Amino acid sequence: MTELRTLKVALLGCGNVGAQVARILIDDAGTLAPRTGARLELAGIAVRNLDAERDVDLPRDLFTTDGETLVKEADLVIELMGGIEPARSLILSAIQNGASVVTGNKALLAADGPALYEEADKAGVELSYEAAVAGAIPILRPIRDSLSGDRITRVLGIVNGTTNFILDQMDSTGAQFADALAEAQRLGYAEADPTADVEGHDAAAKAAILASLSFHTRFDLENVYCEGITRVSAADIAAAKEAGFVIKLLAIAEKITATGTETAGNEGVSVRVHPTLLPREHPLAAVRGAFNAVFVEAENAGELMFYGQGAGGTPTASAVLGDLVSAARRIVLGGPGRIESTTGHVPALPIDAATTSYYIGLDVADQPGVLAKIAQLFAEHGVSIEIMRQTIHRDADSNVESAELRIVTHRASEAALAATVEAVKALDVINSVTSVLRVEGA
Amino acid sequence: MTELRTLKVALLGCGNVGAQVARILIDDAGTLAPRTGARLELAGIAVRNLDAERDVDLPRDLFTTDGETLVKEADLVIELMGGIEPARSLILSAIQNGASVVTGNKALLAADGPALYEEADKAGVELSYEAAVAGAIPILRPIRDSLSGDRITRVLGIVNGTTNFILDQMDSTGAQFADALAEAQRLGYAEADPTADVEGHDAAAKAAILASLSFHTRFDLENVYCEGITRVSAADIAAAKEAGFVIKLLAIAEKITATGTETAGNEGVSVRVHPTLLPREHPLAAVRGAFNAVFVEAENAGELMFYGQGAGGTPTASAVLGDLVSAARRIVLGGPGRIESTTGHVPALPIDAATTSYYIGLDVADQPGVLAKIAQLFAEHGVSIEIMRQTIHRDADSNVESAELRIVTHRASEAALAATVEAVKALDVINSVTSVLRVEGA
Repeated sequence: MTELRTLKVALLGCGNVGAQVARILIDDAGTLAPRTGARLELAGIAVRNLDAERDVDLPRDLFTTDGETLVKEADLVIELMGGIEPARSLILSAIQNGASVVTGNKALLAADGPALYEEADKAGVELSYEAAVAGAIPILRPIRDSLSGDRITRVLGIVNGTTNFILDQMDSTGAQFADALAEAQRLGYAEADPTADVEGHDAAAKAAILASLSFHTRFDLENVYCEGITRVSAADIAAAKEAGFVIKLLAIAEKITATGTETAGNEGVSVRVHPTLLPREHPLAAVRGAFNAVFVEAENAGELMFYGQGAGGTPTASAVLGDLVSAARRIVLGGPGRIESTTGHVPALPIDAATTSYYIGLDVADQPGVLAKIAQLFAEHGVSIEIMRQTIHRDADSNVESAELRIVTHRASEAALAATVEAVKALDVINSVTSVLRVEGA
Repeated sequence: MTELRTLKVALLGCGNVGAQVARILIDDAGTLAPRTGARLELAGIAVRNLDAERDVDLPRDLFTTDGETLVKEADLVIELMGGIEPARSLILSAIQNGASVVTGNKALLAADGPALYEEADKAGVELSYEAAVAGAIPILRPIRDSLSGDRITRVLGIVNGTTNFILDQMDSTGAQFADALAEAQRLGYAEADPTADVEGHDAAAKAAILASLSFHTRFDLENVYCEGITRVSAADIAAAKEAGFVIKLLAIAEKITATGTETAGNEGVSVRVHPTLLPREHPLAAVRGAFNAVFVEAENAGELMFYGQGAGGTPTASAVLGDLVSAARRIVLGGPGRIESTTGHVPALPIDAATTSYYIGLDVADQPGVLAKIAQLFAEHGVSIEIMRQTIHRDADSNVESAELRIVTHRASEAALAATVEAVKALDVINSVTSVLRVEGA
């Protein structure tokens, strides 16, 4: 066996994921060395508080509060501190020092990715971030490398385990959102302040990253339309279920081409996060609990799906280590880091330019001619109806009848749909619009 | 826009996949160039017969019968001829000439992969073969790169679309194997001579490649136990269905560790292909028709699944082009090709060392004490029973009763199971052993 060189690894942050990365680097050193072509030596761990409790028992002498000095001695830097500063400055310092960087910091990438990628390119080092989207699931590397000769047309991702757990609970138990959220908090799937998850902000940052790699163009958070799951009711879920659908919070990045008059002048990419109906037979519909999955449609490859654990210290550490070993192999071989494939200038489109099918629930007066009136109004707005179903309820006590109307449309633009809904609301036969939800995968 | 350099691409073979690769290289040249960092120029296509019919209309002057000369002028060579020779000689010639090679030739890789990888390493060029396993699905690169910091413990793959289509037909329509095969042939999913597919040979070659990358050790066809689907009956499928299972032909590569006495001295990797029962709720159970999927279990990442189209000219061309663009990017950046991660020396184990659960169907005499006798015999052989269910049938005409016994065992070794089945057969209360099938994913 030839003598292997040693590469020094600096770890910034030692939370949930960081502690597992440190454990694996120490415990699996013997396994990682031959497949890397170098010994990966954990040179130190920078933390804010030396005395904090850790998930894993690690040697005390590895810890330091001086990240800046640690980074300067490293061949490879792993940033798992989260937040913008000091993560950003330490990453820049590492890159300028010639170290390759692995990060899972989606907030930083969504906020300031382009500047970081540019610095890495200039320095000829790798900046990789598989852990930032969908935890353990290899999705960024397949999009960047395996699909580099194809044209991705659409990405649909369940990329937030918290919201998928909540929606799955609501679907399987009939619970209301607030109760399902409480259950998720009790089980540790949701944080005490669940805003970033349930309002879709976490998924939106991931959508921006997925869209950037899929469409070879930099998109940031401002390009992402974002709607969370707080307004999804048990009634919505039940109605969807009855109609053969399941409601998922999807991160969507989709190429829009000008085929119809509605979208003329609107060629580009729609990046969005919103609750979405999926047919129960769609591969994404079977993604239960806190699991994640990303469904990719490409012109040549067709439909692909990547499925696995989207969070958790150990699974996410697997993604970090995959990036680390790949970057280390590149250092061993010599030559600069990877080429970035962000070469395009595809415009990001507003949500109005997206076209999907819609599910619309209406509480209507039980009178003759109501269906015809509504159908006529949809037609006037250029929105074609695929399915229309009316259910009559009779209140046993009052003997008053009410009617519920459920409509699934063909693909229509957001703008056309919004105008239709406004017009429907104004009809005297309409008591209320109970839900408007987008449908994908039908 | 800076002037891009041109890389010459030689294509060997112009069948189903090759013709689509040529089409994409020509039609998408403008898209591929900026994301590659070089213009990819299709310099020529080597074929046996210049006048053969092609799936795609391609410029006549690209075609040549002189593969050897074509290869010598190329920076990148795509081999899609299939078979051992002249594919092998042309690939070696390309490598020695400093060209990176992309191939989808699983037969060649299974037969002579190690010699080819070694030559590529020596020459500092890339030899990539994503298209050889599971068509369009990015699976080899994720295993090689994304999971390089993890330890894979098990891979379960539906990697042959023909057999998955046949089994799915049998499952959904109740058809016998012969009828489902005929339907697959009629629809073009099975070839006139379906041996390579239905006997599991195609899946076995893919299993060897998956095992080699997953366990960092070279395994070849001789290390793979192979059992096809020709003996799977409609009755097997129906019984499995009733018990909540679906039968799939799985390519399995599994790490076996010596935890029990049964497997002592048998540490290593079991690589095998056989019809397998899967619980209907397992993610692989939902893979229908001719689709492929690979389910990967790793120590840190947990469970992952990769799903998509496993065959077809255009989907497979996507995988070829992903490899091509990645190899071209590396040439543009300079520096040698990828490091190979085949560094281990894990032994390949015979099928006897594998442990799985088993489903056993028995036609037994309807007498008191039969169940106890059989249970006793299983216990004596160290095979633990998880579920035992007896169904009594009464023939309306003869009024003769017969009993059917269905047993699902806990995990047991092949050897223990085989001994148990032999002993069961010898019991006087047994009319016949109607099926013995392995169960995974329970």
